[in-house]
Amino acid sequence: MALNIVIMAAGKGTRMKSATPKVLHKLAGRSLLAHVLKSGEPLDAAARIVITGHGAEQVEAAVAAPGISFVRQMPQLGTGHAIQQVVPALVEDQGQGTTLILNGDVPLIETSTAKALIDTCAGHALVLLTVDLADPTGYGRILRDKDDGGVLAIVEHKDATPEQRQIREGYSGMMAAPTAALKRWVAQLTNNNAQGEYYLTDIVAMAVAEGLPVLGIKAHSETEVLGVNDPVQLAQLERAYQARQAEALMRAGVRLADPARFDLRGTLTHGQDCEIDVNCVFEGRVELGDNVRIGSHCVIRNVSIGAGARIHDFTHIDGEALGASVGEGTLIGPFARLRPGAQLGREVHIGNFVEVKNATLADGAKANHLAYLGDATVGERVNYGAGSITANYDGANKHRTTIGNDVHVGSNCVLVAPVTLGDGATIGGGSTITKDVNPGDLAVARGKQVAIAGWTRPTKKR
Amino acid sequence: MALNIVIMAAGKGTRMKSATPKVLHKLAGRSLLAHVLKSGEPLDAAARIVITGHGAEQVEAAVAAPGISFVRQMPQLGTGHAIQQVVPALVEDQGQGTTLILNGDVPLIETSTAKALIDTCAGHALVLLTVDLADPTGYGRILRDKDDGGVLAIVEHKDATPEQRQIREGYSGMMAAPTAALKRWVAQLTNNNAQGEYYLTDIVAMAVAEGLPVLGIKAHSETEVLGVNDPVQLAQLERAYQARQAEALMRAGVRLADPARFDLRGTLTHGQDCEIDVNCVFEGRVELGDNVRIGSHCVIRNVSIGAGARIHDFTHIDGEALGASVGEGTLIGPFARLRPGAQLGREVHIGNFVEVKNATLADGAKANHLAYLGDATVGERVNYGAGSITANYDGANKHRTTIGNDVHVGSNCVLVAPVTLGDGATIGGGSTITKDVNPGDLAVARGKQVAIAGWTRPTKKR
Amino acid sequence: MALNIVIMAAGKGTRMKSATPKVLHKLAGRSLLAHVLKSGEPLDAAARIVITGHGAEQVEAAVAAPGISFVRQMPQLGTGHAIQQVVPALVEDQGQGTTLILNGDVPLIETSTAKALIDTCAGHALVLLTVDLADPTGYGRILRDKDDGGVLAIVEHKDATPEQRQIREGYSGMMAAPTAALKRWVAQLTNNNAQGEYYLTDIVAMAVAEGLPVLGIKAHSETEVLGVNDPVQLAQLERAYQARQAEALMRAGVRLADPARFDLRGTLTHGQDCEIDVNCVFEGRVELGDNVRIGSHCVIRNVSIGAGARIHDFTHIDGEALGASVGEGTLIGPFARLRPGAQLGREVHIGNFVEVKNATLADGAKANHLAYLGDATVGERVNYGAGSITANYDGANKHRTTIGNDVHVGSNCVLVAPVTLGDGATIGGGSTITKDVNPGDLAVARGKQVAIAGWTRPTKKR
Repeated sequence: MALNIVIMAAGKGTRMKSATPKVLHKLAGRSLLAHVLKSGEPLDAAARIVITGHGAEQVEAAVAAPGISFVRQMPQLGTGHAIQQVVPALVEDQGQGTTLILNGDVPLIETSTAKALIDTCAGHALVLLTVDLADPTGYGRILRDKDDGGVLAIVEHKDATPEQRQIREGYSGMMAAPTAALKRWVAQLTNNNAQGEYYLTDIVAMAVAEGLPVLGIKAHSETEVLGVNDPVQLAQLERAYQARQAEALMRAGVRLADPARFDLRGTLTHGQDCEIDVNCVFEGRVELGDNVRIGSHCVIRNVSIGAGARIHDFTHIDGEALGASVGEGTLIGPFARLRPGAQLGREVHIGNFVEVKNATLADGAKANHLAYLGDATVGERVNYGAGSITANYDGANKHRTTIGNDVHVGSNCVLVAPVTLGDGATIGGGSTITKDVNPGDLAVARGKQVAIAGWTRPTKKR
Repeated sequence: MALNIVIMAAGKGTRMKSATPKVLHKLAGRSLLAHVLKSGEPLDAAARIVITGHGAEQVEAAVAAPGISFVRQMPQLGTGHAIQQVVPALVEDQGQGTTLILNGDVPLIETSTAKALIDTCAGHALVLLTVDLADPTGYGRILRDKDDGGVLAIVEHKDATPEQRQIREGYSGMMAAPTAALKRWVAQLTNNNAQGEYYLTDIVAMAVAEGLPVLGIKAHSETEVLGVNDPVQLAQLERAYQARQAEALMRAGVRLADPARFDLRGTLTHGQDCEIDVNCVFEGRVELGDNVRIGSHCVIRNVSIGAGARIHDFTHIDGEALGASVGEGTLIGPFARLRPGAQLGREVHIGNFVEVKNATLADGAKANHLAYLGDATVGERVNYGAGSITANYDGANKHRTTIGNDVHVGSNCVLVAPVTLGDGATIGGGSTITKDVNPGDLAVARGKQVAIAGWTRPTKKR
Repeated sequence: MALNIVIMAAGKGTRMKSATPKVLHKLAGRSLLAHVLKSGEPLDAAARIVITGHGAEQVEAAVAAPGISFVRQMPQLGTGHAIQQVVPALVEDQGQGTTLILNGDVPLIETSTAKALIDTCAGHALVLLTVDLADPTGYGRILRDKDDGGVLAIVEHKDATPEQRQIREGYSGMMAAPTAALKRWVAQLTNNNAQGEYYLTDIVAMAVAEGLPVLGIKAHSETEVLGVNDPVQLAQLERAYQARQAEALMRAGVRLADPARFDLRGTLTHGQDCEIDVNCVFEGRVELGDNVRIGSHCVIRNVSIGAGARIHDFTHIDGEALGASVGEGTLIGPFARLRPGAQLGREVHIGNFVEVKNATLADGAKANHLAYLGDATVGERVNYGAGSITANYDGANKHRTTIGNDVHVGSNCVLVAPVTLGDGATIGGGSTITKDVNPGDLAVARGKQVAIAGWTRPTKKR
């Protein structure tokens, strides 16, 4: 039996006060619409149709993918009008099938809830997603039959009697309907109302009139059906989503110093006994091995971190598309930065004010203080001195620095790439190295120290 | 009709456990007393009088400004005694006028509320600011007439009957009174009570006895009338104030990743589509153009940031009195610091562990790694190498470095100011430049690289 | 009368999903078990016995100390079985005495509560620690005698009648019992129940049957008796504990910008008028003098900070075992790092991207930008230039750098230790200093600046 998943995503979202269409605003790093699509992903659908309108091109470009089609609703004349536009695109299997209607600005709808709507509909019943509300003011109330619990009507707040206003069950805006019936109903909608809009909720009365079962399924929580209309609501959902992620990680054994100060905008996989201190932000795809400890105030993106590694406070890692990796037992930070292509072996040490970009450091290599390693291949057990720099850019091209095993680079050196330091070489402090250094050699490139006795310092001028 | 605004600010605030007088403690970067003065500022007052006592000199010096006068209350014998001191300073217009009494330690009183007190008083009624309290324990309760709602009395908690203790409306300590009546009443106050103090609230009975209307106006929220008596309450109000600011910014379109982790101690103006990640602190006067994105953990003070600029995580900007500016599309951070007088053009890049102070960088200039630019003028498209330093201080005086357009400064250079690098000059890595460099020249100042073969490393000593 | 303190710490804590035994997980930097031991510390006990089981060796090693003994419970057959194991170790004084039973995974039990249990027991009554619960679901309910309030029974949730389930007073798992009676009772326990375990709570019925008084004392709060079973509960208790610490500090006069963003894992002593901005983490032993201000996002461990010092945003201090000290009026940060053995005098300035390790800086010394001072002795009023480095490590040994008073070290210098710079010496920018410098001398070690006119830059390669 064919399933259509229809996502309404045509609204402007004026209260967002943004040039970006509402459904493209991001929650935990992913657009609201992408969240809804992701919730529908596990469902076996014949068609996934996004109804676009405001900023249609931008919205379509953002979520275009195989299996997703778009129908434009222009102008926007109400929810019923939106479904009218989508009718020609709805797939049926010998007149059978279900259409699930979701909202592109209600991001936290769960797959299990969507599935319950579809299963209950089973191509035969109209099923509304409802929600028990702490404060139902403004919501359409669900009127149920006292005997069988079936839904009799949705009564708008403004039309509700005082008794009806006591009802705490409200309509979420989402439903599943038999596709054939849905087509029949939306064709009959009128816009004889104050707003001159076509309301999808009018089909409830049609279903009741036809004697078709109208059922209500309750959402797990208010959060699941909350829509985003302004940045305040976006922030509220962001925090609810982050709290949910934090709790799931803790239940899986990750220890968070403060779940209210944890942000994950992507995926975080982890081994056993990982600890994450306060105020860390994770983005993209992050993998942690066993016993990884992340200090406070770290920003970690797109990196794989090996077992037993320790990321100290104030570390910034961003592998971007290229990725980055940190070996087992490696120590990073505080105040360190790993950029794309940083590939650190085991027991590597990267200390404070050190930047590593597109560089491979073999096991046991150390760069502990105020240094830059870019476009470099660094051997095992290398000691890379404080203040030393790989001069990888000549103003036009990037060049590579190759440092052999057991090399000792002194402080404040410049390694002018392309250059190779052989195994076991030593570079004297303060040297600018422009030529290759043979294995085992000491290379020095600096002026001779001279003393000028009794030198008179400058004095303060007026 | 003359308005007097009287602010009681004589208390010591023992529970603050501070050498600073209570009203000078800061909420969102501004003293409690300054908040109250600011709330009163839009009101057209004939006199603004601050009653000082504990730490009077310090308090007066902190808020002294044209139009503000001070009356000292020494010793402090109660709220009625405070108003007795201020009587000679009250201004009347042909015997007409209103006196508004505020508390210097109740910082979040709103202008609209103050105005409502004044307007309702209209020089004829005694108007109390009251508040509905979740837990009124300890507060004086407002007894109202059942027919006309007028205030009959304030009953102290300890004197209240069980029925009266059910009343949730409490007195806030603020009021507006006809100036002439106020003078008359405070002259009649006595201190026949356990504490031996003169209580201003005793005037309610006098007004009732005289048959003058006594009215109560309710504050918008408890927060508005909360006083600060210890650091716990100060922190509570700080968070309430920050939450209010965060919500206002979000409603205006600013997207905050977590409104509970946002601090603004000053003013923040913004264009459309600005985003602010977690844990940012703003101070002083900060201006953001359209599409500015601020990363996590940034501290931003006194700076103007142009449209499309991106401030990465862990950026510290403080323009102080001199100010700072960041041009359109410019990228800063992570781990960058801009200090006073940093003036960055368009599409400038300031990278990690870079400090900029009193320096102008023209469009397209870059200083991406571990560098210091102080007292410098940097041309367009300059590439300022990793680890390079402007040596601007000779131990006595500061000197300026001038770098022309399209200059390429290598890594770990020292530019000993005063020095000028001409347009298109190139500085070899590791050079200490003490003399001007002509346009288009390559300047190098470093030792020749020598190799010592088979060098024996030091060995570990015991 | 002899007191035994028995702490049950044999459980595995499966839901922690950790290789670490549950009672060794840390709350505010100290293990759960250590918290319980600390609460018992002020009590005058004849024996302090920890019952270990899962991970016994690890647990015993972690908390071993004079006066603490261990009894192993293997296998773990219930709380009654645990106490059976401990019986031979219980100390009595002529048949008299009290045994206090605490849980190793209930860390926030207060000393005063433990003392109340002991005092109420007085070697004669069985005293249960109970708690009023917002939601008692799952807890054993305390049935009290309507007349004298004595405890009649603990009814397990599953065995409770609907009326009994209305009881909000639950059993905490902690108690004090006459030692002799306890021995007698636990010898009679059976495991005739579904789980086949020996339940300590069965002794309540025995005491009632014997006519011994059974009393209940209520905990101050739920927090006090909350156990840790998974990382979610661990985080909840962590936050509760941190909130408690934050409030205590504020009541003592410390001003916290946001008590919800404050972490103390150790002890913090302070003078008057200290201010701590958002997101600071304190560990180990930290001492603050009067008027110390700590900026936002600081991590501060094991350091003593003098009066009037100002620690700017993003400062990382960790004295570790060696300690560190910051003198009066000294300024640190932002983005500075002090490591073990950093000893800073008065009015010292440590600026951005500066690292100090095992170094003494005398009064008025300054290292303001991008520098490393390791294994160094720095005199008064020294100006240590931007980018300068003490090269303290020759690849095998650490050596010391000695800098006299009033020395001026230029930018990007390398001081190759061991080396001494005499009082008043000046080091030219960009110099690598390998030999001692006499007092008052200017030392320079750099190449001569040469210019190559009309130099052609590299061009972009394909």
